[in-house]
Amino acid sequence: MPRKKVGIRDVAEHAGVSVTTVSHVLNETPHTRTSEETATRVRAAAEELGYRPNRLARGLRTQTSGMVGLLTEEIATTPYAGRIILGAQERASDDNLTLAIINTQLSARPIVDPAQVQAFLDRQIDGIIYATVFHDVVVAPPTLHTLPAVLIGAKDRDGVIPSVVPDERAGAASVVRMLVQTGHTRIGFTDAAEDVPATRGRLIGYGEAMAEAGLPTDGLVVAGTSDAAGGYEATRALLAMKEPPTAVFCYDDRMAMGAYRAVAERGLRIPEDLSIVGFDDQAPIPTSLFPALTTVALPHYEMGEWAVSTLVDLFNGDDASRRRAAEPVRLTCPLVVRDSVAPPRA
Amino acid sequence: MPRKKVGIRDVAEHAGVSVTTVSHVLNETPHTRTSEETATRVRAAAEELGYRPNRLARGLRTQTSGMVGLLTEEIATTPYAGRIILGAQERASDDNLTLAIINTQLSARPIVDPAQVQAFLDRQIDGIIYATVFHDVVVAPPTLHTLPAVLIGAKDRDGVIPSVVPDERAGAASVVRMLVQTGHTRIGFTDAAEDVPATRGRLIGYGEAMAEAGLPTDGLVVAGTSDAAGGYEATRALLAMKEPPTAVFCYDDRMAMGAYRAVAERGLRIPEDLSIVGFDDQAPIPTSLFPALTTVALPHYEMGEWAVSTLVDLFNGDDASRRRAAEPVRLTCPLVVRDSVAPPRA
Repeated sequence: MPRKKVGIRDVAEHAGVSVTTVSHVLNETPHTRTSEETATRVRAAAEELGYRPNRLARGLRTQTSGMVGLLTEEIATTPYAGRIILGAQERASDDNLTLAIINTQLSARPIVDPAQVQAFLDRQIDGIIYATVFHDVVVAPPTLHTLPAVLIGAKDRDGVIPSVVPDERAGAASVVRMLVQTGHTRIGFTDAAEDVPATRGRLIGYGEAMAEAGLPTDGLVVAGTSDAAGGYEATRALLAMKEPPTAVFCYDDRMAMGAYRAVAERGLRIPEDLSIVGFDDQAPIPTSLFPALTTVALPHYEMGEWAVSTLVDLFNGDDASRRRAAEPVRLTCPLVVRDSVAPPRA
Repeated sequence: MPRKKVGIRDVAEHAGVSVTTVSHVLNETPHTRTSEETATRVRAAAEELGYRPNRLARGLRTQTSGMVGLLTEEIATTPYAGRIILGAQERASDDNLTLAIINTQLSARPIVDPAQVQAFLDRQIDGIIYATVFHDVVVAPPTLHTLPAVLIGAKDRDGVIPSVVPDERAGAASVVRMLVQTGHTRIGFTDAAEDVPATRGRLIGYGEAMAEAGLPTDGLVVAGTSDAAGGYEATRALLAMKEPPTAVFCYDDRMAMGAYRAVAERGLRIPEDLSIVGFDDQAPIPTSLFPALTTVALPHYEMGEWAVSTLVDLFNGDDASRRRAAEPVRLTCPLVVRDSVAPPRA
């Protein structure tokens, strides 16, 4: 099933010019001169014949492949890989780049696997994105310093590779401020026991915003597993307090699902008797709950987009992002207001 | 930041052989002879110097890129893309292939976009996977017939391109048979109003298995939107029947979430008073519900794996799958038993 291909020679013949001229025009080779009239004729001939320059041949000349590689363990372990891939792929498309993907095994050690970086290098990939959610800081193999690279979700221990993370702390603080503005002064937090960047950032954000508002947090933080069962137990504990909270901020939407059940079992109503807020905007939970859950969205699409944009900057020799690499870029986690928050009962 | 590269010349010099010999050994060029001793020496030299053959150069020689391309609108529109990508990527890895991804816009017309196929052809992609969930049959552009291609989720109108789909019908029938074996004879179905392959297949499977068991379905099929609100309304309608069902099979897990709410509001218990079964095994719903939802899993990982396997067969000249392309391969949707089914009350 061989492909009948239109070659550069066919285009040259059709346009009445040399093969070299066709190559210069179609590849926009720098430092070459062709009259606009000839260039127009060449492009018309190429279009008419359906000729496309061979990307592999161009790659050999320019030492580029037009591919950016995404290395991640998220596809297998989180529901968010799709949004990262989508953001990266759509941004790559804008620059006529192709996104290649390797799923890595989740590693307990915050070290990028050199063999998987090598797999991309073997394909002459132009740049690498490494995405993780389980570590604050990763150690990159030396090979990751031999080409443009960016990190999603963690920063480079050596402060060389640009990185982007969700601003979990500011996102959590914005929830507390919104609840305070709505009139709440007893705000509980169902914390998750896992030790990952998200748990640390959200707890700090909650604590800071409570302190900022001069509100006590004693007894109002209850830890559980980061799922519906954990949220159910933690919310039950909060509701059993002598002076229970009027609003519960759940570490994630899955815990919020459990919180809804705890509230229903006590015969209370959301949001009239208790306001609930989640985090993650994890489809389909927020819109499947009744009432629909007010929560905070993670900027996964935006992080994928940022990663490819930053690689393109690096390809173009703009290393401003690299100079700023010591600290990760923090993207906003926006509040998504639905129906689970109301003022407390007077 | 230029990469200091070890070239084939360095390897040849180090091993004391010609560049041609190094090329033959490392590329395992067919119809060439090199003594085992020389080959060993060349490989040792390549390893010692960290030399890797240039994939682009090899691609030009062999007219292959070592890449398979996945074209899908699922990343943006369904939660399942991750599993398809994971299955395809892990299978591709086994054959030292790289998976490239393009997200397409969802199209109302069941036609594969020729421009996006061309984007892959420009990169000399070796084979294409097109994945959709919204159409039974798709029309492929002629270019998709110029290279190995497979479809996930829909069959080729022209019966040429091999395809794979979930066996929705058999999956739905297996739910009804399990409920019948558990003792249920009044089994409701919350149907979804959308006209997609999944709705048609599941409704047929339910009807066939009910007929097979000699059970009536009159009034037991209630349609709604395929979300929690639709499942809530449909289940309320079923529970309001003079002789309500003892088990409700929901079109998908989101409808099942709504069914749980309807059951709780009536003060009934799952599974003691009513058994509930979902479909999709859409994380995190089934394990976030209490009790955990018995449901049916979609073979997305397996379809991704099948797609790359079939492409590899086609690369190797095995066109058995192509000869069978008139009908799609149907992969099993396995029952995932959790805690939401029990025998009906006596």
